[in-house]
Amino acid sequence: MKHDRLALSIRYLDGVLETLDQTRLPHEERWVRITSPEGMIHEIKRLAVRGAPLIGVAAALALADFARRGASRDEILKAAADLRDSRPTAVNLMHAIDLCLREYEKEPTSEGLMRAALGIFDEDVRLCEALAERTASFIEDGDGILTHCNTGGLATAGAGTALAGIKKAHDQGKKIHVYIDETRPLGQGSRLTAWELQKAGVPCTLICDNMAGFLMKQDKIRKVFVGADRIAVNGDAANKIGTYSVAVLARHHRIPFYVVAPSTTYDSGCPTGDEIPIEQRNPDEIRGTTAPQDIPVWNPAFDVTPKTLITALILENRTWE
Amino acid sequence: MKHDRLALSIRYLDGVLETLDQTRLPHEERWVRITSPEGMIHEIKRLAVRGAPLIGVAAALALADFARRGASRDEILKAAADLRDSRPTAVNLMHAIDLCLREYEKEPTSEGLMRAALGIFDEDVRLCEALAERTASFIEDGDGILTHCNTGGLATAGAGTALAGIKKAHDQGKKIHVYIDETRPLGQGSRLTAWELQKAGVPCTLICDNMAGFLMKQDKIRKVFVGADRIAVNGDAANKIGTYSVAVLARHHRIPFYVVAPSTTYDSGCPTGDEIPIEQRNPDEIRGTTAPQDIPVWNPAFDVTPKTLITALILENRTWE
Repeated sequence: MKHDRLALSIRYLDGVLETLDQTRLPHEERWVRITSPEGMIHEIKRLAVRGAPLIGVAAALALADFARRGASRDEILKAAADLRDSRPTAVNLMHAIDLCLREYEKEPTSEGLMRAALGIFDEDVRLCEALAERTASFIEDGDGILTHCNTGGLATAGAGTALAGIKKAHDQGKKIHVYIDETRPLGQGSRLTAWELQKAGVPCTLICDNMAGFLMKQDKIRKVFVGADRIAVNGDAANKIGTYSVAVLARHHRIPFYVVAPSTTYDSGCPTGDEIPIEQRNPDEIRGTTAPQDIPVWNPAFDVTPKTLITALILENRTWE
Repeated sequence: MKHDRLALSIRYLDGVLETLDQTRLPHEERWVRITSPEGMIHEIKRLAVRGAPLIGVAAALALADFARRGASRDEILKAAADLRDSRPTAVNLMHAIDLCLREYEKEPTSEGLMRAALGIFDEDVRLCEALAERTASFIEDGDGILTHCNTGGLATAGAGTALAGIKKAHDQGKKIHVYIDETRPLGQGSRLTAWELQKAGVPCTLICDNMAGFLMKQDKIRKVFVGADRIAVNGDAANKIGTYSVAVLARHHRIPFYVVAPSTTYDSGCPTGDEIPIEQRNPDEIRGTTAPQDIPVWNPAFDVTPKTLITALILENRTWE
């Protein structure tokens, strides 16, 4: 099995694992060499590596690379547990690590683990392609589209999820215009989605998150497409904070609201959105340099949108209405 | 008539007119001496002086001070027109200048103009006090309150509008907790409201604008109070961008949504919100240093909330349901 893999923000070439530091985009494309599970955990925790599908792939590769470097079984199991805990909400991470460990139990060698990790990478590429096709079929000529956070190539090992579908529709010649929520506090929209859409030549406009409602009121938005970090059994979906507000605004304005995600984001162990753990992050992400430095802050990284507000969940192999 | 006046962010002492540079809050309290109408226009345009009631007071004082320095009638009329045009949405500005000019026609002296300007200042203080009393009566023990932008002493010549009512309720011993929308792109919530509420000792928490919906879903918000920059005859209200989204979210969660403003914000010449001009501002306010520097941006400074989404407009002398 050939080991080399190359994606927009992760690469494994000649046994060297590197991730793109997404906190520095769009102004600088700096690759970080990962030499240990701790190194990957650090990158995941600080959101240099982010996007539910991508962190699953990245954690799996870090674990396999650790084994290839000669880690013992105990070290591997400990690293797997630490990687699994690095972020609590996106379930792709847990699924990827669990799958690696199952394969490792079957074939307890570094090669077995590497095969599992590369399999997860390749599967993500395939899932993205299928998601893009399916999502594009929902997009029509003339659509104004709103998206939140980043669901493009940066968020996956492949072409992306929701944003891949939007790009695909553009490539198919459909005339669309994409409005990008900047996605406070960390700007995955203003920094990452804006960068990806500009590169792809898709007409787009950046707005503040609080402008989405007024934009809808002016009939500029015909559809909303977002990603997901975990989908519960009842169809509730966790995604980047702010997604729920967009879903409520879309409902008020009778605008279809679509969640696009691979089935690796589905959690069969989670009955409803109420059981999805929501990560609370550092208050300074919101305070920045401008707010009073001791002001109390509430900073959930995600929220949960109930299935009742979701027109359809678009998975790679089905549309769940 | 004694000329000296002192407010939180404007002062006229011994014939020296100064405004607080609100763009530097909360980290620096820098006063700027205003020596001409152009100087005041500059401060208003760059939002160093902001808040619908305050810009009315500030423009009137700048005009009167210009007259006191010996400006001719033609110069005064020209300056009045320029001040009136410095920002398009808040109608208090137009009302204040129009009132000054009417008084000047009756008594075409600098003293006549100064009396008019100081009268506007004093009236604003009185209106704020009445608004605070009336607004506080809507607040109950245990209320979680959401507010957007800044409607405190910084936005007026007096105690403020919505925020003055919130502070008043706190002073009355009601146990409340205020959630502050940071109010992108310029952070009037995170910089100004946070600063005011901390100074006043009111328990508060800062959130990103896109978190308001998720907070409401968790039953943390019992009432919303915001200000207004212009109220149309049918009760539609223009206010800081993002207000409309909050109003829709409040309606979805069945949370009362109150607009608090002095009657100087009412525009009898404006039948509905559709006729309120909305200022578009510099794209760089949103791009900041992190977004691609050539990404197209939509940056309306205000939006319009239809009366149907407003539980009540709280004016100083009546509650308009």
